[in-house]
Amino acid sequence: MEFLSLYSDEYFMQEAYRQAQYAFEEGEIPIGAVVVSNNRIIAKAYNQTEKLQDVTAHAEMLALTAAAEYLGNKYLHDCTMYVTVEPCIMCAGASYWAQLKRVVFGAPEPKRGYRRVGNLLHPKTEMVSGVLAQECAELMASFFASKRN
Amino acid sequence: MEFLSLYSDEYFMQEAYRQAQYAFEEGEIPIGAVVVSNNRIIAKAYNQTEKLQDVTAHAEMLALTAAAEYLGNKYLHDCTMYVTVEPCIMCAGASYWAQLKRVVFGAPEPKRGYRRVGNLLHPKTEMVSGVLAQECAELMASFFASKRN
Repeated sequence: MEFLSLYSDEYFMQEAYRQAQYAFEEGEIPIGAVVVSNNRIIAKAYNQTEKLQDVTAHAEMLALTAAAEYLGNKYLHDCTMYVTVEPCIMCAGASYWAQLKRVVFGAPEPKRGYRRVGNLLHPKTEMVSGVLAQECAELMASFFASKRN
Repeated sequence: MEFLSLYSDEYFMQEAYRQAQYAFEEGEIPIGAVVVSNNRIIAKAYNQTEKLQDVTAHAEMLALTAAAEYLGNKYLHDCTMYVTVEPCIMCAGASYWAQLKRVVFGAPEPKRGYRRVGNLLHPKTEMVSGVLAQECAELMASFFASKRN
């Protein structure tokens, strides 16, 4: 990827992408997330459902828990969560409860993404999609291609 | 409550209710859950969102994680989850991923329950509602009444 200006959505998505790469290297579906507060990354996580054998261990869930732990507050009103792929229903539901300021995701997920059942995010949460979408989607495609071979 | 026959839905819901009572005593919204496999309770949990300051720490999420840990398997195909109140969207989403055999809940939750957006459970998951519904609802009502006073 090219140089990305600091504090842009692309910059932070690149950090989420790096997390997704760690997931890939560990044989996990490659999805990564970071939570940003006041232009600082306060939590990073990647999908660990296989390693932990826990369906709740999605990147977003781990990142939200870590961000709340860092802030000492379950509400993340001032935070933006960057995630490489459109969140699933579980993760959108968690984002609702956390009342995030923004949710920014990369690749759409028509089959498993939350948008197929409507807008599940909190009314106060702004949603942005398509940031580094191609890179995020290609990482997913590479992963599933490698699993088929 | 009266005596309940062993292995009935009411029996296991009473165990979930007991978990909800622990939540109540700790100042948490009183929701409890247990996961049952082969007529044995393999996980118990109650809502701990306040104590942990973590929106993901719903009774169901903690119980699903504990059950998967116990079984060493993220899929809970042979398990029934009993929860005192209709699950929220996040928890229904987690139940979907876990592919539970059954989800049994007590009191309906028209405002925050998952059913307002459709059936979010896995197609293989049987859903039963209304088990000890009155007791479970009264515990919730008592809690919110105590918070208002």
